[in-house]
Amino acid sequence: MEKITVLLGDRSYPITIAANLFDDPTSFWPLKPGDRVMLVTNETLAPLYLNNVRLILEQADIRVDTRILPDGEQYKSLEVLNQVFTALLEGSHGRDTTLVALGGGVIGDMTGFAAASYQRGVRFIQLPTTLLSQVDSSVGGKTGVNHPLGKNMIGAFHQPASVVIDLNCLNTLSARELASGLAEVIKYGIILDGDFFDWLEINLNALLALDSAAMAWCIRRCCELKADVVAADEREGGQRALLNLGHTFGHAIEAHMGYGNWLHGEAVAAGMVMAARTAERLGQFTSVQTARIIDLLKRAGLPTNGPSEMRAEDYLPHMLRDKKVLAGELRLVLPISIGAAQVQSGVAHDIVLAAIEKCIVNPTF
Amino acid sequence: MEKITVLLGDRSYPITIAANLFDDPTSFWPLKPGDRVMLVTNETLAPLYLNNVRLILEQADIRVDTRILPDGEQYKSLEVLNQVFTALLEGSHGRDTTLVALGGGVIGDMTGFAAASYQRGVRFIQLPTTLLSQVDSSVGGKTGVNHPLGKNMIGAFHQPASVVIDLNCLNTLSARELASGLAEVIKYGIILDGDFFDWLEINLNALLALDSAAMAWCIRRCCELKADVVAADEREGGQRALLNLGHTFGHAIEAHMGYGNWLHGEAVAAGMVMAARTAERLGQFTSVQTARIIDLLKRAGLPTNGPSEMRAEDYLPHMLRDKKVLAGELRLVLPISIGAAQVQSGVAHDIVLAAIEKCIVNPTF
Repeated sequence: MEKITVLLGDRSYPITIAANLFDDPTSFWPLKPGDRVMLVTNETLAPLYLNNVRLILEQADIRVDTRILPDGEQYKSLEVLNQVFTALLEGSHGRDTTLVALGGGVIGDMTGFAAASYQRGVRFIQLPTTLLSQVDSSVGGKTGVNHPLGKNMIGAFHQPASVVIDLNCLNTLSARELASGLAEVIKYGIILDGDFFDWLEINLNALLALDSAAMAWCIRRCCELKADVVAADEREGGQRALLNLGHTFGHAIEAHMGYGNWLHGEAVAAGMVMAARTAERLGQFTSVQTARIIDLLKRAGLPTNGPSEMRAEDYLPHMLRDKKVLAGELRLVLPISIGAAQVQSGVAHDIVLAAIEKCIVNPTF
Repeated sequence: MEKITVLLGDRSYPITIAANLFDDPTSFWPLKPGDRVMLVTNETLAPLYLNNVRLILEQADIRVDTRILPDGEQYKSLEVLNQVFTALLEGSHGRDTTLVALGGGVIGDMTGFAAASYQRGVRFIQLPTTLLSQVDSSVGGKTGVNHPLGKNMIGAFHQPASVVIDLNCLNTLSARELASGLAEVIKYGIILDGDFFDWLEINLNALLALDSAAMAWCIRRCCELKADVVAADEREGGQRALLNLGHTFGHAIEAHMGYGNWLHGEAVAAGMVMAARTAERLGQFTSVQTARIIDLLKRAGLPTNGPSEMRAEDYLPHMLRDKKVLAGELRLVLPISIGAAQVQSGVAHDIVLAAIEKCIVNPTF
């Protein structure tokens, strides 16, 4: 079992990583007998895990209500969030209830925001079931929903009481979802840890084969890297913004294509190549380094170009609505080596456009 | 000019109280030239104040967008809140924007929650225009919206950057709204400050006549009392709950009658009498003390009985959904003297029912 702690003063919390955790009631710390729980999951995951988790909790004398939401990024909305509030109120849940998020990033973000907002804040526990949510969204307390005009535009910082990662969940992931998670894994190597990037180049096939030792170490390392960043910068004043490498480009892809058509990690993968190309044009990154990134992303089964439906000009309006925009000025996370990145303001729009252009496969050529 | 500071560490903020503040751009600290603002108000207040405030801000080189919401507690909903998010996104407002709430409690609560949630938190300034919001909801950082199944059930703790109280706003209040504010004023005397209650008995007529010296001192004293409580207990672990005297009963009235039909202060006034009657039955309060409360409320033009449409049994289901309910047990704020109150758990339902019964005017008798 791997166990780390996210250090945030009186909001510190543990992340536990192992197989078969969902079969052990002690995994679900800090729940105790007599507690009430609202277990939130989606239609796809419910048949796989819901009864098992509910049973384990009920055997530990915890009173469990459940709410099953529709599956998909397009349902990460205020309207669907309100279904969780309705379920909580219909069940007369008080301030002492605990919300448990059983699912990927969408379920985790929505359940977390529901916990942040229900009666101005109740406890919640993350049970992330996808690689993407295990290495990224379940750590750090960012919660929220989308708005038709922008992704993750409505939300709160609300830390979980604990995160429980059962490696068995990865067995039911599709190849595409696994690859989407690997995009965020590779991101950590690029922005924070060149040695980890080297390790990924050597061990990628083991990860794709779901080798449990490799996967446990990989998830632990990503959570550690993210936990360090979050501990240093909980509310994204500075260093935390580095975690958004590729995301400003990627959000433009997700928004333009309609949420859910490109998976988050797929959009981030293409976005990271666009960021690398931008860094190249600024003279701070080499095409050889970009080639290493492209190679690793391709081996993971990820796209390294934007969708053929989008022209370079289609990106900017979306990018200028990004949360990192200050006073109308585009701010981008750009790599400076394999293992280091920085936030850069005022990058000229024509440089960004040219970098995106290089990542467009034009179907007419 | 009266000025106090709510002490909350790095979230401390000033409250300024005087006439004509909206005519002075320096009132709107910490706004500075170049800042962007989303000014949120309602249809009733817009013709009275909106152009004036916008002009003053624009003369100070601040870029002002506005959003006018429908007027009324029934619009304090997630749906209307979403209109604010839409306006912010359509205007490409970034994390550096400031939301300004120009209005009473509904506008303040919704704008504050919008500020708490937009891009996971932006700055906001309160310009409370009703006595109720000046002495109560604009101080302390409670923000939120209603759910059809419960009032203020969705929200956040989010402190304003400053509160600016222009006494001129009181000149346009209806007598009923003024009285509603006085209910909360009287509440502070009952729960925290017997000397202030005495002062109110002497000066109530001056307040009803909007005597500006009396009103400025009254608002200052209420803000001070509330600020002290909030500074000691920002997230309502203990002492802050005292501010809810009469509110558990009052919320039941508001919910049963439909939001907006009884004003908040009217419901709280009747609720405070019910709390006093409950305390009497528990032997901790005298009928003479209750009579002083009833007398002062009546002089202020406030109801001291519940609505004739409600039977005592109609209250409990609403009261058991109150946020103060823990593990299904009713917790009530009850007075122990004029100037002191406490939170009490496990009060027998029949005592509460009998106390409510005493505050019901049965139209058939």
